Amino acid sequence: MIYKCVVAYDGSAYNGWQVQPNCPSIQEQIEKALSKIHEERIMIVGSGRTDAAVHALGQVFHFESTMCLEENQWIQALNRLLPRDIRLLSVQVAKDDFHARFSAISKRYDYYITNDVSNPFLQKYMARDNRILNIEKMREAASFFLGTHDFTSFTSSKIDQRKTRIKTITRVEVISHERHVQMIFEGDGFLRYMVRMMAQTLIEVGLGQLSVEEVNVMLEAKNKHVCHYKADACGLYLVKVNYEEDE
Amino acid sequence: MIYKCVVAYDGSAYNGWQVQPNCPSIQEQIEKALSKIHEERIMIVGSGRTDAAVHALGQVFHFESTMCLEENQWIQALNRLLPRDIRLLSVQVAKDDFHARFSAISKRYDYYITNDVSNPFLQKYMARDNRILNIEKMREAASFFLGTHDFTSFTSSKIDQRKTRIKTITRVEVISHERHVQMIFEGDGFLRYMVRMMAQTLIEVGLGQLSVEEVNVMLEAKNKHVCHYKADACGLYLVKVNYEEDE
Repeated sequence: MIYKCVVAYDGSAYNGWQVQPNCPSIQEQIEKALSKIHEERIMIVGSGRTDAAVHALGQVFHFESTMCLEENQWIQALNRLLPRDIRLLSVQVAKDDFHARFSAISKRYDYYITNDVSNPFLQKYMARDNRILNIEKMREAASFFLGTHDFTSFTSSKIDQRKTRIKTITRVEVISHERHVQMIFEGDGFLRYMVRMMAQTLIEVGLGQLSVEEVNVMLEAKNKHVCHYKADACGLYLVKVNYEEDE
Repeated sequence: MIYKCVVAYDGSAYNGWQVQPNCPSIQEQIEKALSKIHEERIMIVGSGRTDAAVHALGQVFHFESTMCLEENQWIQALNRLLPRDIRLLSVQVAKDDFHARFSAISKRYDYYITNDVSNPFLQKYMARDNRILNIEKMREAASFFLGTHDFTSFTSSKIDQRKTRIKTITRVEVISHERHVQMIFEGDGFLRYMVRMMAQTLIEVGLGQLSVEEVNVMLEAKNKHVCHYKADACGLYLVKVNYEEDE
């Protein structure tokens, strides 16, 4: 059977989602717990990687198993074995051709920046800047990202040449809360560092370091050398991965 | 000059306030930062210890220095050197006889317990229990703690025989929030583990494991063997230390 799982994690103590030698990863912790339950090595496939210190409210992964447990039994057994900063939220039997990465149709990431810089409890959970952000300007600039674009300008320079850099962004919102600003990015896929680069670009606009029009120029340039902005990993949350079957 | 400082910290990564060999402590981090600024060893005196994993919103300490800086200069210099989970909030010149511990007239501690047990972001910041708490019963039991009592029943058994165990509690509140319960304890002083033992006792009452009247019996027993309850350290916050001069 193929099981589809949703997991939330506080990424602060991990070197990201993906298993890496000599570094704690979320994938490794989950595989260790599943392998213990199965008494054999179980591998999982995530919807995509998250970088070191990035958090998730709803990362999705799948694994294959012949074990047949009820959902609450899976959750109890796994959460007992997992570190407390990784919590399994749901486990469901999926269709045989379900694949956490290839079946995903869209994802939502949120980014948080706070002006409460002397709050020690937010240090691992939001970017910090005590300067005033111009929210209206951030919203104007954000609208350029909406729609289908070649996002070469907003990704890591070490990009795989064979992969498309054309992505469709269906939602960008900039929401002002009392002491922090939340940015919502939803789309059919995101390139490496793309959300963090878009987020910091919007922050620079909010700070008045970059004009709204310059963001459009950067996007149109389709040039990996034009954007040197990348927001702190700790402010980024993978909120939700959407699949056709959910609809 | 005697400087009085207020500091907030996320205690999760530390073995408590007090310097201990081979263990990271908050006091050690602050002394290291101050010693670097002064280019000589500086020691600080806290209002009291906090245990491993306990947090502070307003711990107070003092130190002696011949250096004369403006408040924002002290804050900037120290916060640049301190780890980001320890944030200096204020630095003020105090009277020559000010002593962070001996001049304190009262303290406030808050304790948090959540039923949101699958939230990985609360794991280091609140105790967890997904059972329903009877808030009214907790409030009834809490009222027994108000006033002046011998709190021998609610402290560690390794207590110093020479020290008084008579303390005056001026405020106990049990507040129900959407997904968590907050308990406020204010008084002229607290014995070792006293807040955590009172908090867990109230939680047990809320769960129906203990009757309201049994709490009074425990308190009246003045016997260190009657209470075996101690709430998780991670739910405890030192909120404020009050001094006469503040009034």
